[in-house]
Amino acid sequence: MQLSGAQHIPVWLELTNEESKLSERAKYLLYYWPTIQGRGEFVRLALEEADAPYVDVARGDEAAGQGVPAMLAILRDGARPDAPFAPPFLDVGGRLIAQTANILLYLGSRHGLAPDDEADRLFAHQLQLTIADLVTEAHDSHHPIGSDLYYEDQKREAARRAKSFRGARTDKFLNYFERVLAANPQGSEHLVGRSTSYVDLSLFQVVEGLVYSFPRAMKGAGDRWPRVIALRERVAGRARIARYLASERRIPFNNDGIFRRYRELDD
Amino acid sequence: MQLSGAQHIPVWLELTNEESKLSERAKYLLYYWPTIQGRGEFVRLALEEADAPYVDVARGDEAAGQGVPAMLAILRDGARPDAPFAPPFLDVGGRLIAQTANILLYLGSRHGLAPDDEADRLFAHQLQLTIADLVTEAHDSHHPIGSDLYYEDQKREAARRAKSFRGARTDKFLNYFERVLAANPQGSEHLVGRSTSYVDLSLFQVVEGLVYSFPRAMKGAGDRWPRVIALRERVAGRARIARYLASERRIPFNNDGIFRRYRELDD
Repeated sequence: MQLSGAQHIPVWLELTNEESKLSERAKYLLYYWPTIQGRGEFVRLALEEADAPYVDVARGDEAAGQGVPAMLAILRDGARPDAPFAPPFLDVGGRLIAQTANILLYLGSRHGLAPDDEADRLFAHQLQLTIADLVTEAHDSHHPIGSDLYYEDQKREAARRAKSFRGARTDKFLNYFERVLAANPQGSEHLVGRSTSYVDLSLFQVVEGLVYSFPRAMKGAGDRWPRVIALRERVAGRARIARYLASERRIPFNNDGIFRRYRELDD
Repeated sequence: MQLSGAQHIPVWLELTNEESKLSERAKYLLYYWPTIQGRGEFVRLALEEADAPYVDVARGDEAAGQGVPAMLAILRDGARPDAPFAPPFLDVGGRLIAQTANILLYLGSRHGLAPDDEADRLFAHQLQLTIADLVTEAHDSHHPIGSDLYYEDQKREAARRAKSFRGARTDKFLNYFERVLAANPQGSEHLVGRSTSYVDLSLFQVVEGLVYSFPRAMKGAGDRWPRVIALRERVAGRARIARYLASERRIPFNNDGIFRRYRELDD
């Protein structure tokens, strides 16, 4: 599907075979907090599905110049014109790309994880930004007052916010993605187009996180959002994703991340 | 500046002269809440600076098929494969584009409001997503518990969150943009590249909003963030922007929008 008046606009970052060969040789350096899935996980999933060579730098050895200090050194380097505001960020041959959705916009085009069609690529990115909104709300469900405070210092406020998040807000988001799947003219197996894109991987991750955080509220999700839950199962069963999920590279969910399990917030 | 291994990747949505002529004839339909600046304002500013013909549909006459009902009808049309999750969204020849940063990604390339260079375009988008994060935090400073509740029902929580927002968070964001301006190899007059991009317009809007919301906390901003404040003045003085700001098309800030002035949150 083409945007009106835009028939001759080239598809962004479309790769010729020659360029694909170049990118196969490229090694990505991913920078993200080493002990949580967090926002970095959306990037990890795309890199894993693409089978792209990458180093998860902050999880590396400090003695080898990796680890969290290497990440902080970049964040604090005020002279860099491509300075990121926050992790995750990706080093691509010396150039930094930050903001999760922006990284996926780049990787998706480069590794066949985005639709070929230009309008569909914009729509995929639009969906990713909607997922990013959901992720921010998931974080704020346990930290409604501020990231600079402990959960324990905002428990009462979190109880109020989580009630709204696990109810009306989660419903609204998942109803929306269910509807997008149902309306995809190329089939309800994917959010956009007819093959797996980074948005499918991201929706998988969000559902994993919701089920981890709110097992009670998410009971019966398969009946309410059958296409969303089916997509989650399909993504989990993809060879490279399944291999990744079973590996030590997949950090388990925990209560330092974005998706946390506090029984009192699920009640 | 080029990304490594990506030398032959075409610049997204780059327009030939022929396509520019096509886009001049196109009329955009913008859908956003009619009584607030909100997130729609970032799109309005780009359309105004581009001198692009557009209709602000929800501000139009219901009898003529416009107004809020026209917007809600699209949001509720479950069969549309390009359904948006929320306003703002743009109708481009029948195809909808949503999510503020995504709309700007599209308009920026089409109307000369984004850098020519591919890596710079990614960086511009990255900055826009960082601005979007700031905007969400600005909203949550008065609505930390939920958008479905009145401010009056979360005043106490808002007081706590606003203290952190107008202090440490605003500092962190504006320090960052000051640093990006200082480090721009093409000059500190723009966030990216050497001419006005949609990100410059958006930073202008954010500073306007912060000054409106937190006049006390923002006192002395020109000393602390001289490049940011100078950029704000330059954007305000651009001919098309100045004309827009003086027109009835510019909705005044008010306490239904994202940036609100509650004296108790600025104290």
